[in-house]
Amino acid sequence: MSVKPTRIPPLEQGPLAQGPLAQGKGPSLRAVPEGDTHERLICRECGFIHYENPKIVVGSVVVVGSQVMLCRRAIHPRKGFWTLPAGYLELNETASDGALREAWEEARARIALDGLLAIYSIPRISQVQLIYRARLAEPGFAAGPESEEVALFDWGAIPWDQLAFPSVRWALGHFDETRGQAVFAPRSNPAGEPVGDPRR
Amino acid sequence: MSVKPTRIPPLEQGPLAQGPLAQGKGPSLRAVPEGDTHERLICRECGFIHYENPKIVVGSVVVVGSQVMLCRRAIHPRKGFWTLPAGYLELNETASDGALREAWEEARARIALDGLLAIYSIPRISQVQLIYRARLAEPGFAAGPESEEVALFDWGAIPWDQLAFPSVRWALGHFDETRGQAVFAPRSNPAGEPVGDPRR
Repeated sequence: MSVKPTRIPPLEQGPLAQGPLAQGKGPSLRAVPEGDTHERLICRECGFIHYENPKIVVGSVVVVGSQVMLCRRAIHPRKGFWTLPAGYLELNETASDGALREAWEEARARIALDGLLAIYSIPRISQVQLIYRARLAEPGFAAGPESEEVALFDWGAIPWDQLAFPSVRWALGHFDETRGQAVFAPRSNPAGEPVGDPRR
Repeated sequence: MSVKPTRIPPLEQGPLAQGPLAQGKGPSLRAVPEGDTHERLICRECGFIHYENPKIVVGSVVVVGSQVMLCRRAIHPRKGFWTLPAGYLELNETASDGALREAWEEARARIALDGLLAIYSIPRISQVQLIYRARLAEPGFAAGPESEEVALFDWGAIPWDQLAFPSVRWALGHFDETRGQAVFAPRSNPAGEPVGDPRR
């Protein structure tokens, strides 16, 4: 493999900043591999090319009667703030299966999906969020290991100033817009909202 | 970092099979890092943890009058077969910007998106495809570097037995279903179609 070295940037965040990379080992050389069009991180010692791709978050707005379910985060970032049951899609998983799994992991809820509510892009952190409308498929819910608390909120009682991420607010607003509509086009980032979301 | 070694599988495909990894270097040890829940590939020499995530493909069914645009692939896999302008979403890119970029790269077409047509999950290869409906925003198109040819097809002239991937057929069928509908729910994998798509 032949590479055209360019520069070695500081690695300020993410898994690349942890462990051996802090000592300049692992994929820490930023260069364009032969035959490629983009810079990649490459290991100086073994030549491993670390291809990075945007990540997919799957989640849902779960409705119970006229109430919506929110989870209070037990983990950083935004510990103690309210969020939707959502998380990273895993390898070998469909998007809808991922949303079901996250509802179980975070809210111990068995849910049924009821259409794709929204697709949000957060390019600053290379994330695409697929948020579904959903309802409980079985009664009952409880805090999973990543939640301090899971609760149902009347629309007027939603803690808007205690939401973990802007996209939680977007999804709740889009849920309200499409309430009672059987067929609708999925929403995307609200106009005028910065896509360089500082949190997620 | 402490790891619990389990086994070293053959690396049969993808970037991990190329170059130094073929000699057992780079992230080739499969183990569960401390505090993690999933197996990851880890470099024996430097401890680098290679987090793998599902990949996002963005593309579009571009309509010109009553015809649809297809590109004949100039690259493997499925070289010589017809596909949609589509490809991997890049870092720091929104999903819709990625679809516009792919239409330019593969078909030298400036397009305008007209709603999310479908979201397909291909879990066997950990891929989620976001396919938009689109139209030409400016006249003209031509083969980009990854296409041998770009052409418009009447519905009855689509080369169904020469399509590159099952999801191209799915998207064309879903395009036809939603033709003329201003508001519709995005489609997902057709019932009865294997999601363990052997090609893509």
